[in-house]
Amino acid sequence: MTPEDLVVIEEIKRLRYRYARALDQKDWRTFEACLAPHASASFGGGAYSFTNRTDIVRFVRDTAGVSTVLGSHHFHHPEIDLTGDDEAAGVWAMADRVILTDLDLVVEGAAYIEDHYERIDGAWTIAQTAYRRLYEVVYPHSSIAGYQITGDWFGSGGRSDLTVD
Amino acid sequence: MTPEDLVVIEEIKRLRYRYARALDQKDWRTFEACLAPHASASFGGGAYSFTNRTDIVRFVRDTAGVSTVLGSHHFHHPEIDLTGDDEAAGVWAMADRVILTDLDLVVEGAAYIEDHYERIDGAWTIAQTAYRRLYEVVYPHSSIAGYQITGDWFGSGGRSDLTVD
Amino acid sequence: MTPEDLVVIEEIKRLRYRYARALDQKDWRTFEACLAPHASASFGGGAYSFTNRTDIVRFVRDTAGVSTVLGSHHFHHPEIDLTGDDEAAGVWAMADRVILTDLDLVVEGAAYIEDHYERIDGAWTIAQTAYRRLYEVVYPHSSIAGYQITGDWFGSGGRSDLTVD
Repeated sequence: MTPEDLVVIEEIKRLRYRYARALDQKDWRTFEACLAPHASASFGGGAYSFTNRTDIVRFVRDTAGVSTVLGSHHFHHPEIDLTGDDEAAGVWAMADRVILTDLDLVVEGAAYIEDHYERIDGAWTIAQTAYRRLYEVVYPHSSIAGYQITGDWFGSGGRSDLTVD
Repeated sequence: MTPEDLVVIEEIKRLRYRYARALDQKDWRTFEACLAPHASASFGGGAYSFTNRTDIVRFVRDTAGVSTVLGSHHFHHPEIDLTGDDEAAGVWAMADRVILTDLDLVVEGAAYIEDHYERIDGAWTIAQTAYRRLYEVVYPHSSIAGYQITGDWFGSGGRSDLTVD
Repeated sequence: MTPEDLVVIEEIKRLRYRYARALDQKDWRTFEACLAPHASASFGGGAYSFTNRTDIVRFVRDTAGVSTVLGSHHFHHPEIDLTGDDEAAGVWAMADRVILTDLDLVVEGAAYIEDHYERIDGAWTIAQTAYRRLYEVVYPHSSIAGYQITGDWFGSGGRSDLTVD
């Protein structure tokens, strides 16, 4: 690993961060641009698989596109190896929480991700991604008496309703 | 981006990490030193705004200074751009949890932060910071029967009371 | 800090990430290789201490080795200082969650870690590690009606049972 390699690795980390930001903010144009046209992706630990960008984006928009789905996907522990001039592989730890307000459900989990990256016309893209769950749990939020959503990106413009005295 | 830029970016990341450490350990001297004198800050997704360091520190101490407030603020996904010799901009994902033991309340959330940084006398400082919530939830911890705090920085010196058999 | 220092720091970050991956995936051979033979470790905020690698690995395998223990240990905010040619010190923020399925218990917490690293035969190892809890909470997951584990690394091969309509 050289200092110049580190610059490339930083670019790839930022690709994953941009992907996460676009996903959770539902910015689908930016989301799509993070993927190679021929990208393959597997979600749900293998429950849902796709072999091109169009299908990936359609699936993610269909399941997470509505404002009743509030989620955070955090990617940690990057172990990124440059495997060619325009190719790299990465392992990440994921921590995610999704609140489905209309279904009264919270989904929380942790997983390990394996990515492959390709640089196309100078821009790094995700060419392949799949994760395997360490664990995934769900619970109805109404099971916790007094559980309230006090702020959300889409409903309140991200402003908190909580009062600090 | 050059290897030398990466060194500067690492310094700015460490500024945010030091800020978080000072905040959650309630080390207000270190916390204050992370901010520019003319810093502006907005908390609660815009609910609380301040335009100088003195007011920021006072607000944070007033709301989080007591040992009945146990919190973790984790900053992820740094996208940091150097915008001048002594200026930079950053976007971060935040995951935070605060337990208000005397109010029987847990506050958990995720947000995106936008920062501006300035280097003053060789030291990077936060000159502007604001966040917008992806979501924020609250619940009384007594709603979960058997919920117990088994260790805290201030009460037990950070030692766990949990017994491993 | 130089660009060359950053390469060394990245190697040390990856050591911690490999340690976490090995711990949560229960890959004990990789876990052991992250530690110096003379490593000392303190867990539970000082509740459990060990002064050599064999004892550390035995304790962690004894407490976390079974498939009824599902955990994620995430390490954030690295502040790593090179203190010698083959020595370094690091501070990290930890966010961890462990689900003990047979004891009906979830343990969640946040902590600060202090590490010392040594490079032995060219490979960085953890020579000393200890953490102090910001907070630690436990609750029986049966207290949340409808709480379900819908995927786990060991049980379902990391695949989610959740159905997306």
